[in-house]
Amino acid sequence: MKKFQAEIKITLKKGILDVQGKAVENALHAIEFPMLNSLRIGKYVEINVEAENEKIALELVTDACNKLVANPIIEDFKIDIKEVVQ
Amino acid sequence: MKKFQAEIKITLKKGILDVQGKAVENALHAIEFPMLNSLRIGKYVEINVEAENEKIALELVTDACNKLVANPIIEDFKIDIKEVVQ
Repeated sequence: MKKFQAEIKITLKKGILDVQGKAVENALHAIEFPMLNSLRIGKYVEINVEAENEKIALELVTDACNKLVANPIIEDFKIDIKEVVQ
Repeated sequence: MKKFQAEIKITLKKGILDVQGKAVENALHAIEFPMLNSLRIGKYVEINVEAENEKIALELVTDACNKLVANPIIEDFKIDIKEVVQ
């Protein structure tokens, strides 16, 4: 079995209101950062995977995201996988 | 002024207990994913920046992260900046 590390970026789908991001953006504008705009906050997940090969690792992580890690109704996710050399 | 998009990955520093990540990992083990381990959950922030050049954009975003977006006492952050071609 090989070891892989997956990085998952989970973002709200376009059109879903990001209240947390809007609050942080307003706070940035209120201090000294009016040039920062369109702030959106998502989740960043790191996870180690044991699998035969990279394809199977990616399938496992995609399955886990759809079932539990992300909410596919309102969120998109993007997975990057790299092998951990021991 | 040019436009840039910054992607910020905010993770808990090593050694800080990630209770949310541990809860999700336990849930994954309880269903059908015992091969997924060491899950850690951070934040993923996308933000648009108006600045003269990439160096200034990076400085602005780093400053905003240290002051408001991240908590530098318990979190690390990593910023990727790319120019938005219009």
